[in-house]
Amino acid sequence: MSQRSKIVLALVLAVCAGAANAAKPAPTPNGIEMPEGYKNWRIIGVAHRTDNNTVRAILGNDAAVAAARAGKTNPWPDGAILAKLVWKATANKHWDKAIVPGDFVHAEFMHKDSKKYASTGGWGYARWVGMDQKPYGKDANVAQECVACHTPVKSQDWVFTQPAVMP
Amino acid sequence: MSQRSKIVLALVLAVCAGAANAAKPAPTPNGIEMPEGYKNWRIIGVAHRTDNNTVRAILGNDAAVAAARAGKTNPWPDGAILAKLVWKATANKHWDKAIVPGDFVHAEFMHKDSKKYASTGGWGYARWVGMDQKPYGKDANVAQECVACHTPVKSQDWVFTQPAVMP
Repeated sequence: MSQRSKIVLALVLAVCAGAANAAKPAPTPNGIEMPEGYKNWRIIGVAHRTDNNTVRAILGNDAAVAAARAGKTNPWPDGAILAKLVWKATANKHWDKAIVPGDFVHAEFMHKDSKKYASTGGWGYARWVGMDQKPYGKDANVAQECVACHTPVKSQDWVFTQPAVMP
Repeated sequence: MSQRSKIVLALVLAVCAGAANAAKPAPTPNGIEMPEGYKNWRIIGVAHRTDNNTVRAILGNDAAVAAARAGKTNPWPDGAILAKLVWKATANKHWDKAIVPGDFVHAEFMHKDSKKYASTGGWGYARWVGMDQKPYGKDANVAQECVACHTPVKSQDWVFTQPAVMP
């Protein structure tokens, strides 16, 4: 490879690295990185929260989906990650009795690691807000708010979602 | 390979083929086969139909998801398949303002092929009902019922679902 080619290659790599960094949101204040490719994960459930007017898709990484489909979710296995994509609830333009996704609200995650996250029930909680995916929370104790809300489902390993039944 | 090994192998293959056949539901009366692996497809949207008390996940094959994420869905490309998994709407046991999947109702599909399905707006419609995935419909004209319902969205290529916005 010529010296000139090497320089061009180095520049291309530097630009690509910059683009990749720019695309990846900052970690949450409790030190959790956004999982790669979560929008491509498989479906575990859906929900319509009528108390805060949102609709949700609950997806899982491979470990989570395998556990969900095997019915082995109490406890969920270490390595499982659940993703919740949340939108404002809105009526379908052409069928107003169908409540569907409007504006994107946030993406939130539960990472199961019974040792690493022992202080928060074995789950690492993380959320990125809005289309610009701003990390949620003021400090490293951000997950305490999550744990408080999830306490009613402590008996089902802190997870509200029961995997949807499928044929 | 010994004669005995060959016989064992032939038996194993026969059993596997039988199992695969048993697992695959019959085609619909309009001649559409159930797509393989649709439960592993990626998410395009969700819905809560308050008129018939169901919640839904709308998934797509690779062609459909690529079109959805590129915003190229009017028309959807030939080869796109949309899958809708439908459950009875039920309240989450531990958060009754969250409406979530209960019993499985049916899986239904729209196959885009502007030539093959020209008589039904370029889409082949198919549905399999219940956990035993019984093909829906009495005869080859089954899709007329679907077309009638989808006529309000003729201007958006016959599809109610607008892909959910994602970061």
